[in-house]
Amino acid sequence: MSKTMEWQNGCLWLLNQASLPGAEEQRCCRTYQDVAACIRKLEVRGAPAIGAAAAYGLVLGARASVGQADFLARLDAIGQELKATRPTAVNLFWAIDRMLAAAAASGESPAAILAALEAEAQAIAAEDVLVNRRLSAHGAALFQGQGPLQVLTHCNAGALATVAQGTALGVIREAFAQGFIAGVYADETRPLLQGARLTAWELSRDGIPVTLITDNMAGYVMKLGRVQAVIVGADRITANGDVANKIGTYSVAVLAKEHGIPFYVAAPVSTFDFTMASGEEIPIEERDAAEVTHLAGVPIAPAGVRVFNPAFDVTPHRYVTAIITEHGILRAPYAQSIAALRHEAQHKQP
Amino acid sequence: MSKTMEWQNGCLWLLNQASLPGAEEQRCCRTYQDVAACIRKLEVRGAPAIGAAAAYGLVLGARASVGQADFLARLDAIGQELKATRPTAVNLFWAIDRMLAAAAASGESPAAILAALEAEAQAIAAEDVLVNRRLSAHGAALFQGQGPLQVLTHCNAGALATVAQGTALGVIREAFAQGFIAGVYADETRPLLQGARLTAWELSRDGIPVTLITDNMAGYVMKLGRVQAVIVGADRITANGDVANKIGTYSVAVLAKEHGIPFYVAAPVSTFDFTMASGEEIPIEERDAAEVTHLAGVPIAPAGVRVFNPAFDVTPHRYVTAIITEHGILRAPYAQSIAALRHEAQHKQP
Repeated sequence: MSKTMEWQNGCLWLLNQASLPGAEEQRCCRTYQDVAACIRKLEVRGAPAIGAAAAYGLVLGARASVGQADFLARLDAIGQELKATRPTAVNLFWAIDRMLAAAAASGESPAAILAALEAEAQAIAAEDVLVNRRLSAHGAALFQGQGPLQVLTHCNAGALATVAQGTALGVIREAFAQGFIAGVYADETRPLLQGARLTAWELSRDGIPVTLITDNMAGYVMKLGRVQAVIVGADRITANGDVANKIGTYSVAVLAKEHGIPFYVAAPVSTFDFTMASGEEIPIEERDAAEVTHLAGVPIAPAGVRVFNPAFDVTPHRYVTAIITEHGILRAPYAQSIAALRHEAQHKQP
Repeated sequence: MSKTMEWQNGCLWLLNQASLPGAEEQRCCRTYQDVAACIRKLEVRGAPAIGAAAAYGLVLGARASVGQADFLARLDAIGQELKATRPTAVNLFWAIDRMLAAAAASGESPAAILAALEAEAQAIAAEDVLVNRRLSAHGAALFQGQGPLQVLTHCNAGALATVAQGTALGVIREAFAQGFIAGVYADETRPLLQGARLTAWELSRDGIPVTLITDNMAGYVMKLGRVQAVIVGADRITANGDVANKIGTYSVAVLAKEHGIPFYVAAPVSTFDFTMASGEEIPIEERDAAEVTHLAGVPIAPAGVRVFNPAFDVTPHRYVTAIITEHGILRAPYAQSIAALRHEAQHKQP
């Protein structure tokens, strides 16, 4: 499979996810503005992938700014621009803050700062792969001795949403390899169909049996007993365990609870917003009405109809059976398990 | 607005709902095979509309069979063919059985039978309009003194799903006219987008404020407190109050319960299957995978992906706050209120 992103000497190659599965286009970003545009247009999407791409974006911005007066202030401004591309996924802010801290810590010389930034971006990307492998192993252990089960997922929290492996799909890949998961029901995930376009594509390529359904079939699939667990990714998890994720996740969580099915969230530490008390505070991005009223340029609703198009929703922690991280499994009470995670993450490399 | 169907001397004009809202095409069915094809391709859809269209289809079949040996047996065979077009909506079977009973009761003469059939089809269509008006008045009374409220609906149970006025949208029209309902959130209703294409179109034309959402936003819209009631139609209601309706209805019902929002079903007596004990017995139509994998001919999923595409689901009666009929409002225990409805329907014209 083509890589989600690859850094090659001044060019960040991104697999254009907006045109999958129809076409596999690699796109070379040579400026931070290119990267910002790709994030905004969802050509790269998924919380960890956005974080890593933005980190490389800052490297590109720094390269172009060498020689400018007030280099560090310029870096900060570029960081703010990159942060402004999307409001909900916290990994974006986490990555930029980590990059700016690395810059600030590396002295005055632009060359040294540039080297530090490139090393930090590479570290963020490399850690993401490692983190997802660890998280996947912890998640697969949850299914040990069961099944093989059928699980349901929403949106795409796969290799495409990360640097590699994936979070929710990482767990699924590992549990499938170990024989605990037999197959996956993938919600298509309107409006932008990340489930149909990306998850079905990723899993098919890996030989993991996948059945595509429309989002409104999830409840019926659960009622028929066709799935025994739900696994999703996350865009931001607050200190109390509330989870922002792709619109529709909350509905799936309510349905899972009603059917007594565990609802698992897989996310790295970089997706936690330890400073935010609850999901009520998370800014929810609203996107263009045309995402709902048009499909592949074809109108599917009467012209001018009013649309509500939130890109995310928040699932309160009481619906979350467990959160799978690279440091292990978190369970309720989440205020305590997440505080412990924060402590561990500050004192230990993943 | 163009009429859903119109009978004009040997031609059943149907508004082609498959091409709405892009084009308003009237289509003339001159044979029962034309009508059967329109039902199968969902050019006419909605339980009451299918029933009325099939009744006219039998008239067209009878006209073409005059002079054939064993005329009544031929009518019966045509009735069976029409019944085989779709399995879930009971109005189809109800209408054909009513037509065949009218034929059997009208003597031996093909001319007399033909006249009886045409009169019966006209009666079915005319009653549907009347029934929906009564049902709408009963439903609107449920909202009296409240609001004005925002309500959510799924799929299209409107004028397009009936001969005129609609069931769920009939109630909404009447409650809007009386000032109890201020606006409607319409689920787009994948895969065939009856909410986006038909409900949004119908309500916009009537000047009723409508906001289009994707199906997976319904839970979040409820959580935000943006809707205070749900109203949907039905394709079959069993003796215990279980409700088959468009896929996704069950998920909406679970979400409504979780949010303490009333979940109303609006349906005429012809949608009740008094002989079926529970929703477990209702045959659920599964349709072509291409409905999910393609949109307007454009592929939106990887080629060859496995799909599950049930066209309906069943909502158990425990999720149903009330059922709105032309005879009044039914509430739990439904076994009793539906038995009483059956008695009333057999002894009184609507």
